[in-house]
Amino acid sequence: MKGPLRSILPALIILAILLPGPSEARSDSSVTKARVNGQRLARQIEKLSEIGRNPGGGVDRVAFSEADIKAREYILSYLRKLGLMVHVDEAGNIIGRKEGKEPGLPPILIGSHIDTVPDGGKYDGALGILAAIECVQVIGEQKVTTRYPLEIVVFSDEEGGSIGSLAMAGELPAAVIQTKSQSGKTIGEGIRSIGGDPAKVALAARPRGEIRAYLELHIEQGGRLDSQKTEIGVVEGIVGIKHWEVRIEGVPNHAGTTPMNSRHDALLAASHLIIAINQVVTGVPGNQVGTVGRIRAEPGAPNVIPGLVVLSLELRDLAEEKIQSLYLRIRDEAKAIEQKTGTKMTFIPIEPASRPAPTDPRLRVCIARAAENLGLSKLFLPSGAGHDAQNIARLAPIGMIFIPSVGGISHSPKEYSRPEDVERGANVLLQTILRLDQGCLQEGR
Amino acid sequence: MKGPLRSILPALIILAILLPGPSEARSDSSVTKARVNGQRLARQIEKLSEIGRNPGGGVDRVAFSEADIKAREYILSYLRKLGLMVHVDEAGNIIGRKEGKEPGLPPILIGSHIDTVPDGGKYDGALGILAAIECVQVIGEQKVTTRYPLEIVVFSDEEGGSIGSLAMAGELPAAVIQTKSQSGKTIGEGIRSIGGDPAKVALAARPRGEIRAYLELHIEQGGRLDSQKTEIGVVEGIVGIKHWEVRIEGVPNHAGTTPMNSRHDALLAASHLIIAINQVVTGVPGNQVGTVGRIRAEPGAPNVIPGLVVLSLELRDLAEEKIQSLYLRIRDEAKAIEQKTGTKMTFIPIEPASRPAPTDPRLRVCIARAAENLGLSKLFLPSGAGHDAQNIARLAPIGMIFIPSVGGISHSPKEYSRPEDVERGANVLLQTILRLDQGCLQEGR
Repeated sequence: MKGPLRSILPALIILAILLPGPSEARSDSSVTKARVNGQRLARQIEKLSEIGRNPGGGVDRVAFSEADIKAREYILSYLRKLGLMVHVDEAGNIIGRKEGKEPGLPPILIGSHIDTVPDGGKYDGALGILAAIECVQVIGEQKVTTRYPLEIVVFSDEEGGSIGSLAMAGELPAAVIQTKSQSGKTIGEGIRSIGGDPAKVALAARPRGEIRAYLELHIEQGGRLDSQKTEIGVVEGIVGIKHWEVRIEGVPNHAGTTPMNSRHDALLAASHLIIAINQVVTGVPGNQVGTVGRIRAEPGAPNVIPGLVVLSLELRDLAEEKIQSLYLRIRDEAKAIEQKTGTKMTFIPIEPASRPAPTDPRLRVCIARAAENLGLSKLFLPSGAGHDAQNIARLAPIGMIFIPSVGGISHSPKEYSRPEDVERGANVLLQTILRLDQGCLQEGR
Repeated sequence: MKGPLRSILPALIILAILLPGPSEARSDSSVTKARVNGQRLARQIEKLSEIGRNPGGGVDRVAFSEADIKAREYILSYLRKLGLMVHVDEAGNIIGRKEGKEPGLPPILIGSHIDTVPDGGKYDGALGILAAIECVQVIGEQKVTTRYPLEIVVFSDEEGGSIGSLAMAGELPAAVIQTKSQSGKTIGEGIRSIGGDPAKVALAARPRGEIRAYLELHIEQGGRLDSQKTEIGVVEGIVGIKHWEVRIEGVPNHAGTTPMNSRHDALLAASHLIIAINQVVTGVPGNQVGTVGRIRAEPGAPNVIPGLVVLSLELRDLAEEKIQSLYLRIRDEAKAIEQKTGTKMTFIPIEPASRPAPTDPRLRVCIARAAENLGLSKLFLPSGAGHDAQNIARLAPIGMIFIPSVGGISHSPKEYSRPEDVERGANVLLQTILRLDQGCLQEGR
């Protein structure tokens, strides 16, 4: 899109949200009436969760583990049964493709992952894959052939660093191949064990612009939809994350013989810093978050004053500038604490930082319209958690749909989404796929 | 001592310090003129430090290690060469005894240890043993026979928990025998490897009242003597130590999806507590110290809000009541932080707490007099570090002599005491032994 039209695009988008689109009349009624089979989807979620289920009810299906491999085989055979063309790419991503009516058009990708954190839940990742399959199955049952090809993508090792989607974006650092994954295998060994080829992982990269759009349905992993009793979340984007290792150097000394006024206690200084970080992050309006999740004090004995503390600092926001300004204010506070406590603080950026990944504004409209048309309540909200979508955002327009997770719980055996919410989310996904296929990206309907 | 005399004892002690004792005239001049051989002592310190010396210049002689066993053999043969009756008790303590003139009198014990921390120094412990040997050697060379028997005691595994002196005091908990020592052996295996008998360790206990007195010379392990350019420290006592494990329970949650105002961050609460501990301990006059040396945050990932923090709290002071009152104030602060942060804090006392062990006031006078008579400057000061003496305090009057450690450094290859300070300390030890033998405990001279 060029010229004058571009400048009025935001206004057009708002119009499109506010007005019932006159283009609705043009919809193929067999398409707008298409609905997923909620019971079948619920059964599939239950069935997949049995692979790797532990005695406590959690799901142990870390990437490259036996359970992960078994679950992948289950998905592969399911995709083949639906008549899709299935292959595993060099990074171990499973891709199931259903051709469209018009040859040469770029595919619509629908994806997520099926690996879990240790002792994870049934919905994180799995929902997105099983709902994508359900959508493609319904489309087949309705004897609809889309114009665009549809591709279901099961990304490899999402929980261990979004390995598969990074590779597809052509951004997987070579060094990562050698690092250990939670399965005990290296990432390279893991990729080989699921049918990829670690030496050729660069070939998994897909060219920019050759994907029509990417869609992902996911549980919220936060409590906003649940607490506000809203059925659908239209994701505005995935927050950027910057991560530092902060080293605080004091002087280790004997806890019995060093008077209080002669100490350079690195842990006392760290405590002041942790409180300052919290004050800086909560001191300005917005949804930004800042967390110190890891801390180590050395030498770490009850009778020695800590001489070194190493801690993690993580800042997240939808705007990169906001992250930067918070960071600078934290550095100022750190300087004051250094002077007060006689310590030295060093902030080491940890790469890769993940840049904020806004979803495509037109796709947000498509999703919102789909939800409205289904009579569902909706909320525009950021995703505080990372998703494969954020990597694919470098290749194609992305859209994400959230459903409520009870209590905002995720990465836990207690993770739960009601079957009716699962069905609603899958229907929004189905309708969004069909709207995309009918051109909602151009028309914003 | 009973009745009216007891009530005026403090006044008598002060008198004894202020007035030159008329009893000085009664001293045997061959005794008051006796001096250690400073060069021989310096050579011995150098020689012992070669056993376990590492390439960085530190001494690796952790208890029960090969180096510790070799150093013990060196000391054993040295003691035998001096003609002492030598044996190793059931707890692995080396005892070298020189009989006195009058049969049936209780011995004067002079002791310390020769094990080190990993990468330790040449003086901590070793000084006390080698100076004791030097004193007994000089007494022999001067053809003096003391009235009381003299016993040199090399306590086993001081750095790993004062094992030998605890056993001699009859207070070694049975469970300790099974625990791992830093050598890799259990304490029991270690005791056996140095000639003790872990099954009969109770036999190492000595009855209360059957030791005339216990003396120990040690480097200060703090910087007061060095910074105040004072030659001798007369130790007032060894501070008591109380130690707690503090558990701070919050709610672990996703660092990206949990808004700042919905968090119960255990590490943020811990930071407030660490600062409050520092404020309480520094908020009242005195030499008390309080330290948080160990901290663990769970789950400990940069992207998860800590749900649990476990930290150590250690308080030291010469008065048990002071420790208790500081602790109660810290608990009050903790309650306020619990409410502010929505967390729960539990303080679990860790046993064994070590009770304050004041040195014997009469012995302090004996030591101070010996220093004065040698023309040395002195300072009365507490020991912030623990020593074998504190366990022997339950059996006998104890006295401790400190010499300056340059920069207050200890437990480090940089640990250093000047040869002239070493010689001064050993002379004070020698003179105190002789004064004790001549009855300074009764007379305070």
